[in-house]
Amino acid sequence: DNVFDFSLGNPNATPPDAFFRALRAAAEEHQPALHRYMPNVGFDEARAAVARFLRTEYDAPFEAADVIMTSGAAGGMNVTLRAICNPGDEVLILAPFFPEYRFYVEQAGGRVVLVQTDSDFQPDFAKIEAAITERTRAIIINSPNNPTGAIYSEANCRELGALLARHDRPERPIYILLDDPYRRIIYDVDTCPTPLRHYPRTILISSYSKDVSIAGERIGYIAVPHSVPQREKVLAAMTMLNRTLGFVNASAFMQRVIARCADARCDLDFYRQNRDLLCNALVSYGYDLKVPGGALYAFPKTPIADDAEFIAVLVKHRVLAVPGRGFGRPGYMRISFCVDRKTIERGLPALKAAIDEVR
Amino acid sequence: DNVFDFSLGNPNATPPDAFFRALRAAAEEHQPALHRYMPNVGFDEARAAVARFLRTEYDAPFEAADVIMTSGAAGGMNVTLRAICNPGDEVLILAPFFPEYRFYVEQAGGRVVLVQTDSDFQPDFAKIEAAITERTRAIIINSPNNPTGAIYSEANCRELGALLARHDRPERPIYILLDDPYRRIIYDVDTCPTPLRHYPRTILISSYSKDVSIAGERIGYIAVPHSVPQREKVLAAMTMLNRTLGFVNASAFMQRVIARCADARCDLDFYRQNRDLLCNALVSYGYDLKVPGGALYAFPKTPIADDAEFIAVLVKHRVLAVPGRGFGRPGYMRISFCVDRKTIERGLPALKAAIDEVR
Repeated sequence: DNVFDFSLGNPNATPPDAFFRALRAAAEEHQPALHRYMPNVGFDEARAAVARFLRTEYDAPFEAADVIMTSGAAGGMNVTLRAICNPGDEVLILAPFFPEYRFYVEQAGGRVVLVQTDSDFQPDFAKIEAAITERTRAIIINSPNNPTGAIYSEANCRELGALLARHDRPERPIYILLDDPYRRIIYDVDTCPTPLRHYPRTILISSYSKDVSIAGERIGYIAVPHSVPQREKVLAAMTMLNRTLGFVNASAFMQRVIARCADARCDLDFYRQNRDLLCNALVSYGYDLKVPGGALYAFPKTPIADDAEFIAVLVKHRVLAVPGRGFGRPGYMRISFCVDRKTIERGLPALKAAIDEVR
Repeated sequence: DNVFDFSLGNPNATPPDAFFRALRAAAEEHQPALHRYMPNVGFDEARAAVARFLRTEYDAPFEAADVIMTSGAAGGMNVTLRAICNPGDEVLILAPFFPEYRFYVEQAGGRVVLVQTDSDFQPDFAKIEAAITERTRAIIINSPNNPTGAIYSEANCRELGALLARHDRPERPIYILLDDPYRRIIYDVDTCPTPLRHYPRTILISSYSKDVSIAGERIGYIAVPHSVPQREKVLAAMTMLNRTLGFVNASAFMQRVIARCADARCDLDFYRQNRDLLCNALVSYGYDLKVPGGALYAFPKTPIADDAEFIAVLVKHRVLAVPGRGFGRPGYMRISFCVDRKTIERGLPALKAAIDEVR
């Protein structure tokens, strides 16, 4: 193909060996009864395996009973938003943001309130505080972030918790919805800071789509820590919604696979090398870029202010990327590096030619 | 256990050998790229296999492009209702009915209009016609039926099509939503009549949950025949909704399994013997029962008019069943026969004792 497609967010690392071993082992079991409906929360074994993984990963006392297996993080996010939102409730989303959130929030009867992050794509607490109203029911936090690759600092995670705690009330709660599928896709640090332990009313929504690289399998989970007030009520609402929204349960077979490899992770070197190759080149060509610390995307400024216009220039050079306005931040663009190495190698001259053309 | 639980609809036949062979074959393939996102409609191979199966099963010219792979029929029904309903649109449901429909319709912004079937649980066309308004957008047809086991006759399928055709208008279309997962769970006939070829604006929604007996795997499909006006527009809306509602796509792995066994079916003898054992006994005890021709449930009258009161009598005898009012038909009850043979054998004396007690 003569098109260099950097527009998609389809994780393309090879899934880890542990996943393929688990897949074959589950297939060889021949367990006729394990393909039936199970409780809507999922198999106990899968929930327990996820909880074990979460205890280590978040250093927090998760148990199987805290976990609901879901059809990916997208399923989990829809279930969660429905469980906590009443019609007209407001959900804060930090821009740039994953555009599917808007569908999820509005389907739940909620209203999206966009709050811009700062020039480093870190939370801007003055703006967040200014956006909070009596109708604010949640803030979605996605760090490492799609599309920016930003990782929120430990200090910012703590400050976020402190800020929300000043506004959270039993009668008008504000949840952090932690959309965390990129948590282990990090390149320069050993672990990713999290607001989870800095704010009690935090609900974790994640998946194995990115770190095990099985996005098509739609296997994820919601975890509701013991710190969440009225936790049992929240879990009960989510369990019912998992059914009534039509998910019913996460794929039985994939639950059995994950029960055997809940801490597996793909090789990050593939993505790290992609990131370095792409980002070093972009910077050397003159693109204004904050090098992403995690996730699968570079989010540079477009060399001309009109991002759609620059995307059109890129198309002339046979490069596909996504304009920043699609993520709530005009003047930028998203370039995925979850692509074949060759796409980067062969696309770089075109990315250079495009910036040279407009300068 | 000392409780005889006839309350659940969890298909418990052993999945066919073809399914297990397909499962192992797909697991042994080791195809790292086939666990990623694919187009939201699903893998071409799965869609083509489903279309081949549908061509034979419905004697209708389905093609791969007509098929969207979904997270079971529940996922397909939610996607379809969202695609065709505007807020306030009315969806006719023939009672007794699967109670989850109400959630699905209301989540799509629609309004449920219940229409009672006749004493044989066949469509009552005078009542259907009386229920149609300018806001009627769809009628859900589920034959073989949950909870009654009724199979709509060929004549009734034809008459339904003729009736709807008199009211269907391009500017206010009325769809048949054919919820067909029980189509091949039939005991006394070779094939199940269908309104599909009697009414152009029919959308097929089905799954492998019942006939392959893998309800926990959440693998199903929507098929939009060429006869549906504005078919491309409908398919495009569904494809987007499959994504935005959070399903994204049906489990990649289970699609690959179904691509290899799209016409497989579990052994019906297990269910037929369960049905005969249960229904012959119920009739001999004096229960007023239309013997179900398909699906997995007996739906007798309760021997006393108050179905909830009789369910309480059954509980005293350690029998669990579901009151008919839960399905929109008080004075009846649903007794599942997708249970262990022993549950029926050991539960029958209790079912006899319960009717004897109230007579």
